[in-house]
Amino acid sequence: MPTVPNRELQTFANPNPERDYEIAFEAPEFTCLCPMTGQPDFATIRIRYVPDQHLVELKSLKLYLWSFRQEGAFHEDVTNRILDDFVAVARPRWLEVTGDFNVRGGIKTEIRATHGKRPEI
Amino acid sequence: MPTVPNRELQTFANPNPERDYEIAFEAPEFTCLCPMTGQPDFATIRIRYVPDQHLVELKSLKLYLWSFRQEGAFHEDVTNRILDDFVAVARPRWLEVTGDFNVRGGIKTEIRATHGKRPEI
Amino acid sequence: MPTVPNRELQTFANPNPERDYEIAFEAPEFTCLCPMTGQPDFATIRIRYVPDQHLVELKSLKLYLWSFRQEGAFHEDVTNRILDDFVAVARPRWLEVTGDFNVRGGIKTEIRATHGKRPEI
Amino acid sequence: MPTVPNRELQTFANPNPERDYEIAFEAPEFTCLCPMTGQPDFATIRIRYVPDQHLVELKSLKLYLWSFRQEGAFHEDVTNRILDDFVAVARPRWLEVTGDFNVRGGIKTEIRATHGKRPEI
Amino acid sequence: MPTVPNRELQTFANPNPERDYEIAFEAPEFTCLCPMTGQPDFATIRIRYVPDQHLVELKSLKLYLWSFRQEGAFHEDVTNRILDDFVAVARPRWLEVTGDFNVRGGIKTEIRATHGKRPEI
Amino acid sequence: MPTVPNRELQTFANPNPERDYEIAFEAPEFTCLCPMTGQPDFATIRIRYVPDQHLVELKSLKLYLWSFRQEGAFHEDVTNRILDDFVAVARPRWLEVTGDFNVRGGIKTEIRATHGKRPEI
Amino acid sequence: MPTVPNRELQTFANPNPERDYEIAFEAPEFTCLCPMTGQPDFATIRIRYVPDQHLVELKSLKLYLWSFRQEGAFHEDVTNRILDDFVAVARPRWLEVTGDFNVRGGIKTEIRATHGKRPEI
Amino acid sequence: MPTVPNRELQTFANPNPERDYEIAFEAPEFTCLCPMTGQPDFATIRIRYVPDQHLVELKSLKLYLWSFRQEGAFHEDVTNRILDDFVAVARPRWLEVTGDFNVRGGIKTEIRATHGKRPEI
Amino acid sequence: MPTVPNRELQTFANPNPERDYEIAFEAPEFTCLCPMTGQPDFATIRIRYVPDQHLVELKSLKLYLWSFRQEGAFHEDVTNRILDDFVAVARPRWLEVTGDFNVRGGIKTEIRATHGKRPEI
Amino acid sequence: MPTVPNRELQTFANPNPERDYEIAFEAPEFTCLCPMTGQPDFATIRIRYVPDQHLVELKSLKLYLWSFRQEGAFHEDVTNRILDDFVAVARPRWLEVTGDFNVRGGIKTEIRATHGKRPEI
Repeated sequence: MPTVPNRELQTFANPNPERDYEIAFEAPEFTCLCPMTGQPDFATIRIRYVPDQHLVELKSLKLYLWSFRQEGAFHEDVTNRILDDFVAVARPRWLEVTGDFNVRGGIKTEIRATHGKRPEI
Repeated sequence: MPTVPNRELQTFANPNPERDYEIAFEAPEFTCLCPMTGQPDFATIRIRYVPDQHLVELKSLKLYLWSFRQEGAFHEDVTNRILDDFVAVARPRWLEVTGDFNVRGGIKTEIRATHGKRPEI
Repeated sequence: MPTVPNRELQTFANPNPERDYEIAFEAPEFTCLCPMTGQPDFATIRIRYVPDQHLVELKSLKLYLWSFRQEGAFHEDVTNRILDDFVAVARPRWLEVTGDFNVRGGIKTEIRATHGKRPEI
Repeated sequence: MPTVPNRELQTFANPNPERDYEIAFEAPEFTCLCPMTGQPDFATIRIRYVPDQHLVELKSLKLYLWSFRQEGAFHEDVTNRILDDFVAVARPRWLEVTGDFNVRGGIKTEIRATHGKRPEI
Repeated sequence: MPTVPNRELQTFANPNPERDYEIAFEAPEFTCLCPMTGQPDFATIRIRYVPDQHLVELKSLKLYLWSFRQEGAFHEDVTNRILDDFVAVARPRWLEVTGDFNVRGGIKTEIRATHGKRPEI
Repeated sequence: MPTVPNRELQTFANPNPERDYEIAFEAPEFTCLCPMTGQPDFATIRIRYVPDQHLVELKSLKLYLWSFRQEGAFHEDVTNRILDDFVAVARPRWLEVTGDFNVRGGIKTEIRATHGKRPEI
Repeated sequence: MPTVPNRELQTFANPNPERDYEIAFEAPEFTCLCPMTGQPDFATIRIRYVPDQHLVELKSLKLYLWSFRQEGAFHEDVTNRILDDFVAVARPRWLEVTGDFNVRGGIKTEIRATHGKRPEI
Repeated sequence: MPTVPNRELQTFANPNPERDYEIAFEAPEFTCLCPMTGQPDFATIRIRYVPDQHLVELKSLKLYLWSFRQEGAFHEDVTNRILDDFVAVARPRWLEVTGDFNVRGGIKTEIRATHGKRPEI
Repeated sequence: MPTVPNRELQTFANPNPERDYEIAFEAPEFTCLCPMTGQPDFATIRIRYVPDQHLVELKSLKLYLWSFRQEGAFHEDVTNRILDDFVAVARPRWLEVTGDFNVRGGIKTEIRATHGKRPEI
Repeated sequence: MPTVPNRELQTFANPNPERDYEIAFEAPEFTCLCPMTGQPDFATIRIRYVPDQHLVELKSLKLYLWSFRQEGAFHEDVTNRILDDFVAVARPRWLEVTGDFNVRGGIKTEIRATHGKRPEI
């Protein structure tokens, strides 16, 4: 049972490519492992994007985020990696990824990275 | 009883067309069906607009949103369709439609689309 | 697609029948129709129970609540009916069903019915 | 007893006319009647303004808002009318009136209108 | 238009009189007049009851509460009067009426009265 | 202008003495002086009571609380004094007075005293 | 790195066994796998207990909860299992375990089980 | 004891005058008297400023605000006066004073005045 | 400067010993050191008591709590110790001490201990 | 045990220096001493920055903030000092430090200082 899914985001054609509009996902069930100690880390991942020709399919996003479950990943690194993976597959006009990590050592950490210039919507 | 109303937005004349002002509706009782599985989806629809010559009549908006009850509709698609229908009937100076959908697969999705350039109000 | 599922709650064997413990479900996606006007009603259904030999299966509960989607039902009536259906199938030691209905005519309505005597837990 | 006050906003001299500053009122006790059905409507009226030579007297504002109690008024209309009445009497440098109306038919409505160009404060 | 409805609560037969269950109404749109000054008062009226043979019809409750709109009523008095009227018509096994009145003179007032002994539910 | 009112609670006849019911006041605008340092203290005073023959008049309560404005008073003492004064005048069946004082030295203090045995309501 | 710790709660001697007192833990970072689908489940585990001779060591509790990360577990089952494991090791005078699981299929589930009779504290 | 302190803000040298930075005070314990009725008014005073050569000393700010306790002051007037007094003593690069006054006559009032042009920080 | 005060609670005579009443302190600025690692721990300490002949003086409570600043203390232990110290000095009729400690290792801990039997107030 | 760590922020190489992105830390467990009275002060420190070549290591940040525990520090001063120390070590493209200090004398103080010009992200 403890199989982790492949890391593959799926897309489908944007039915409204002529228009700039914004899609926001909030995924509070993200977990990976600390690469130093092997202990579990937990975060809410927030993704906002303005699609171009491709929309990211919701179920594949769930599987994609799940794929980090048994992998070591620094906070800064994993947030940037999700950004890169999303860009490679969906080529959005604009993208923002936020990793909102739980308290460790009494300190809460949030990483936010973007790709492209945000259209006025 | 299970009749669903026709999809028709009604308007009436804007009594203050000389002035840019903003109208906001929040409708938390929107439901349609998932086109893949046929299962019910639920959302809050938020509409903000700056009217030109026409105001959208509140009761017809209620019936219009109700008309999606037994229809299959992707999140991105239905939000853009509400935008298009509203524009076709009310021809507002500016319009924003937000579809704020309930959690599916542990992920919350929100779609936001606009029409026209927002006047400074 | 607009098919509504059969109204059937499924159960499975309680693995801990020797112990009184409490299970609580909160289902904010309940909708039925007003038997007077045919217009949609919306509610959050809350169920708390102390199982005896049977646990109610979560997916069948989702389908069961969905089955009211196109049916006319008074607030008081539907809450009592859910209680009766749940008792008939799961025979819990104690059960509470709450129907928390959205504002109509500027008034919010909440119905709460119970079955059996609540064990001290 | 059921007398409703005259609709008259009172002003007094702004003691600091040399300076742009902002005054905000929040009045959650606004009620008028629906012009279609005669049924009561309820709203919170929010007023923000940058005064010029005149300040609006608080007690007269209370009486002014009270004066709508037994009058039929559409949401969009009454918000614009309060704006116009306020401008006529107080001639502010900038004014914003928001009518935040209670849920009707499962939908909440908010109207926001402004007069003049907001100074940077 | 400024007609106020007659003060008449309507009931219909309780379909589940064999069972003690609880019905709660929250009505935030109550307004009456201060019998001293004639000025409007505002309150949220909360009603909870365990029905016997009769259920109170929701629309008639809305009209009943509306009927106080142009009437002078002390906080303590009107809360007790609603209790008495409700008992006279619905003869519930238990009833609680709460009048939660807005701030006057910097002080918030809440009145709560009950009828009968609350069954364990 | 800096006159402080006399400390006199006024009462009027309880129109429903045959019934136990509860009245609650919340007064967030209480201020007195620290008897040690002469510095201002601030509190929210909460009063709940079950009246017997007398109701406390709201305006006189406002003046009564105001009368402490320039007086030195320990937290514990002033809360008990309000209880005693209220009992002396209104002779309630039950009374609770809570003084919820603002943070001093990083610590928040709340005093709660009662008179009589609370009837089941 | 993806090693999961052994399932072992550690205890140490209660320094105040002569007194009934209560200890509450809230652990929002619990995750296991659905035994049907292998997909991740997420929950907040809440533990309250009155110790007898043994206190549960906080770090071992963290490791214990972590040990479920790659294991299939039904909601009802895992909550009862944590209760049993805790009792076996710590032998508390009273214990309550609550598993507050994230929404699945639009429904939130919470399981609460107890051991022993709660002392009055 | 009922002595009110002199109205004197104290300053000390800004240790970082080479840098624009912002200081915000929130003082919820402000009270003065209504100049019409002599009755107490209550407000939260919020001050934000970018210092130049002088910082305002916190204890003197407390005494300064306290000094209004027995003085009659209109809402608009007292907010502007605090702004003027602060400017006269501290000569900040930018200053904002907000007077957030409690509900009177069912209406909440907030006054906000600024001095200088806000640096980008 | 880094001197820590002596651990001495001061009391003064209860002016109302004839009456059971309750005093509650909330002190969110408690910090001590972890006896294992020497690292700082943080907690909110809540104290509720029914005094007999002695009231605890607020300033001495502040100094008392401060005295733990540089001392190693387990969560369970320090909460019981505060209870014992308070009892030794104030001899209250009833006392409850709650230590609400910040998250460590993803888990929040709260300890609650009492002394005596709580009078009905 | 009461040893305080050295004041040394550690950094490691930014794996994504080609991209402007933002990192935010929230540390609610900051405490230092008042340089006037020696009494403890408490604050939440918030840090947001856009890294250049260096990321600040989370554990060293915890130790760095801890190092102020027994040191006298004015609110304005300590906030600016944290900014300077952070800049000296991490040389970020942009940095904001906010010190959000607990209420003293009934007034809450918040200091916010920045370094560099915030990139559009």
